Amino acid sequence: MSNLSTQSYKGTRDYYPEDKRLQNYIFKVWREAAEGFGYEEYGAPLIEPLEIYTAKSGQELAGEQTYAFQDRGERMVAIRPEMTPSVSRMVAARRQEMPMPSRLYSIANFMRYERPQRGREREFWQLNADLFGVEGAMADAEIIELSYACVMGFGATEDMFKIRVNNRQLINQLMSEFLGLDFIGATMMTKLLDKKDKLPVEEFKRQAISIFGADAEKGLPKLADLISISTLEALPPGLANLPSVVEMRQVMQSLKKKGINNVVFDVTLMRGLDYYTGTVFEFFDTSPENNRALFGGGRYDGLVGLFGVEPVATVGVGLGATTMQQFLEVHKLLPRFASHTDVYVAVVDESVVDGADALARKLRSEGVRVELDITGRKLDKQIKTALKKQIPFVAFVGEDELSSGVYTVRNLVDSSEEKMDAVRMVTVVRDRRYDGDDDAVFEV
Amino acid sequence: MSNLSTQSYKGTRDYYPEDKRLQNYIFKVWREAAEGFGYEEYGAPLIEPLEIYTAKSGQELAGEQTYAFQDRGERMVAIRPEMTPSVSRMVAARRQEMPMPSRLYSIANFMRYERPQRGREREFWQLNADLFGVEGAMADAEIIELSYACVMGFGATEDMFKIRVNNRQLINQLMSEFLGLDFIGATMMTKLLDKKDKLPVEEFKRQAISIFGADAEKGLPKLADLISISTLEALPPGLANLPSVVEMRQVMQSLKKKGINNVVFDVTLMRGLDYYTGTVFEFFDTSPENNRALFGGGRYDGLVGLFGVEPVATVGVGLGATTMQQFLEVHKLLPRFASHTDVYVAVVDESVVDGADALARKLRSEGVRVELDITGRKLDKQIKTALKKQIPFVAFVGEDELSSGVYTVRNLVDSSEEKMDAVRMVTVVRDRRYDGDDDAVFEV
Repeated sequence: MSNLSTQSYKGTRDYYPEDKRLQNYIFKVWREAAEGFGYEEYGAPLIEPLEIYTAKSGQELAGEQTYAFQDRGERMVAIRPEMTPSVSRMVAARRQEMPMPSRLYSIANFMRYERPQRGREREFWQLNADLFGVEGAMADAEIIELSYACVMGFGATEDMFKIRVNNRQLINQLMSEFLGLDFIGATMMTKLLDKKDKLPVEEFKRQAISIFGADAEKGLPKLADLISISTLEALPPGLANLPSVVEMRQVMQSLKKKGINNVVFDVTLMRGLDYYTGTVFEFFDTSPENNRALFGGGRYDGLVGLFGVEPVATVGVGLGATTMQQFLEVHKLLPRFASHTDVYVAVVDESVVDGADALARKLRSEGVRVELDITGRKLDKQIKTALKKQIPFVAFVGEDELSSGVYTVRNLVDSSEEKMDAVRMVTVVRDRRYDGDDDAVFEV
Repeated sequence: MSNLSTQSYKGTRDYYPEDKRLQNYIFKVWREAAEGFGYEEYGAPLIEPLEIYTAKSGQELAGEQTYAFQDRGERMVAIRPEMTPSVSRMVAARRQEMPMPSRLYSIANFMRYERPQRGREREFWQLNADLFGVEGAMADAEIIELSYACVMGFGATEDMFKIRVNNRQLINQLMSEFLGLDFIGATMMTKLLDKKDKLPVEEFKRQAISIFGADAEKGLPKLADLISISTLEALPPGLANLPSVVEMRQVMQSLKKKGINNVVFDVTLMRGLDYYTGTVFEFFDTSPENNRALFGGGRYDGLVGLFGVEPVATVGVGLGATTMQQFLEVHKLLPRFASHTDVYVAVVDESVVDGADALARKLRSEGVRVELDITGRKLDKQIKTALKKQIPFVAFVGEDELSSGVYTVRNLVDSSEEKMDAVRMVTVVRDRRYDGDDDAVFEV
């Protein structure tokens, strides 16, 4: 038999310990942000019946991008490409019993069949946070504030990103009343505006003309007017008092009161998914090196009701870990982590390995994370392994050490050495942990 | 369109916050155990090329139980049914660069197409811990000790479970030399012994006779002899000095030195998967209510080498979360958790919601997890929601409270109330957290 390939499946990543530490760091900051707002973690199945995606996620996502297949019982299923339909199903299943409002979050993996590219993987990890059971601007503002905390928690500053907001009902109104488009034209124009930043100007214009058809001559200047609108105040007079505009103004004022100052109204912000019904928003990286949308969310009041229960007002956000990692790299916000392990116990002579094991056990019983070398290798090789793993300390155990109970402990970051007993070792190695509980930062 | 079903896909579970808290508790204890031994977390892709399972996992798992399908590029892939092939592939891919020994763990979900039954789900979560690069008894003993810590970490005692050990090479030897079976007969007998506890005695005997064929008359009494062996010392004299027996004796002695006293040699322990090459072990629940294998593991030195690199000695274990949950339930080891949220801020009058929001922000900046009620509902409804969510405290915010900076805080567990400012609130609510950092236990 020929050898198996060591490559991971296209568009998926192997997370070696150093990659996983970084991912865990991102998850930890997100988790603290979501829990800070009283959101509770839930988990949903990896696969769902395909129809829950075809119902509302939009044709592109459900039809072309899902990993869909028939199971052995001939049911059409899909590996989840997003969380929103699953969590909506879960809320619908307990529509009566669940405490409302419900604040829920999850950190989970998803799959989409896409051409892999920078920041876009076939398997990806997301935080999803959703607030069920509250209508209106304060709920929308809370989800945006939570999202903001998910970015600021890494030490970001407001100049590094912008928060764009819009409203799906306002978009509909602009399409029909301001641009004079019918339903199909409005849908096409929405999709065109959604990809505006990715298209050359000429191509954008060509497609816009084709959407307007016979009305292109009147439509194009209106479209140019629309795109130039950069504040709520600049909206055409007839629209300024629409409920959707009033609500958006409230959202923006509420964010201002919360001390968030990088929010802008963006009339061209569409957000692709079909299920949004009100406020939509997007966090956008302002760095010239990474000038792109980081993540987004919005209000989708109709989804829970699709499962045959009384509808629930809902607003939510989904953040991808890889996109976040790129944001943190571009803005130099990533710490360098040491191993999670506190101390590597090196065995000077194989005959004392039982004693070294007893020391390891004692340290572990005090909550110290200890890797014990049981290879019987030469000492320099043992130290090399500890260094390669970026473990902050090595404790040496030989016969003298065991009889005296005093061990030489080397700090691998600054190469200093100190003799100490097990009790002191517990304090010394735990003190080095970053944030009391987390990984130490390994600065070499 | 008819309504979508709220049911999760057959054999999968929805984890509502109370379920997820319990699962997270299991993960936390496991994580601490694995990290205590210096194991570092990794992550692997959700899907893999199908052939990495057909190569070594055994026909049942790869052929009948995987969720396998063709992707849009016509590659045969499978949702991972286990972790061992993936982590072996990852180690093979970095055979040269990875520090050896490598101690790796993961907590991940898997799927198998099985008839759902108690403790067996189509989607399930496992801890996998593997030690790469060390041969021999000490490495085997370390993995068993780590597994033991994964159970004892919940407050279990040794009488609640037994650790059965055996050795794949000894099994082979017993099959060929003691029972006189050829390769095919040995394979069939191994599978038969693997399901011995699940078969009626007569059926077991019938199948054994069919395996022995013409030699049944001689074979059956030998099989009875073999099954009756309950200690290493009781092995037939010719076998006592086999390397596999010597090694098993070392494993058992090493565990004894580590203070583990519930280890038994079990000559009938087979472990189903084809890839094991040496020590195999299984943790078995001793409760009459749950008399079953909890999880198992063993040595599989051949798997990394299948990927075309120099082989690596490997021993590992995989623990399922649902089986563990049942063990904890049967032995009454599960705590009851409160919400992760520390305090519910109830708003006495809608007009002060901005002030209540400012208080929530202030508390959050001190690391307190705060849910703010923004519904404008009557106070009794707000309190009911907090109770339903099992949040330990409610803080009431009205106009007087905002002007004085002194809030009434109700402890929902014992219904006591106290007036305090925000600074004291931080201390009071954080003090209640279980284990400093974790969920409070909600005893009502």
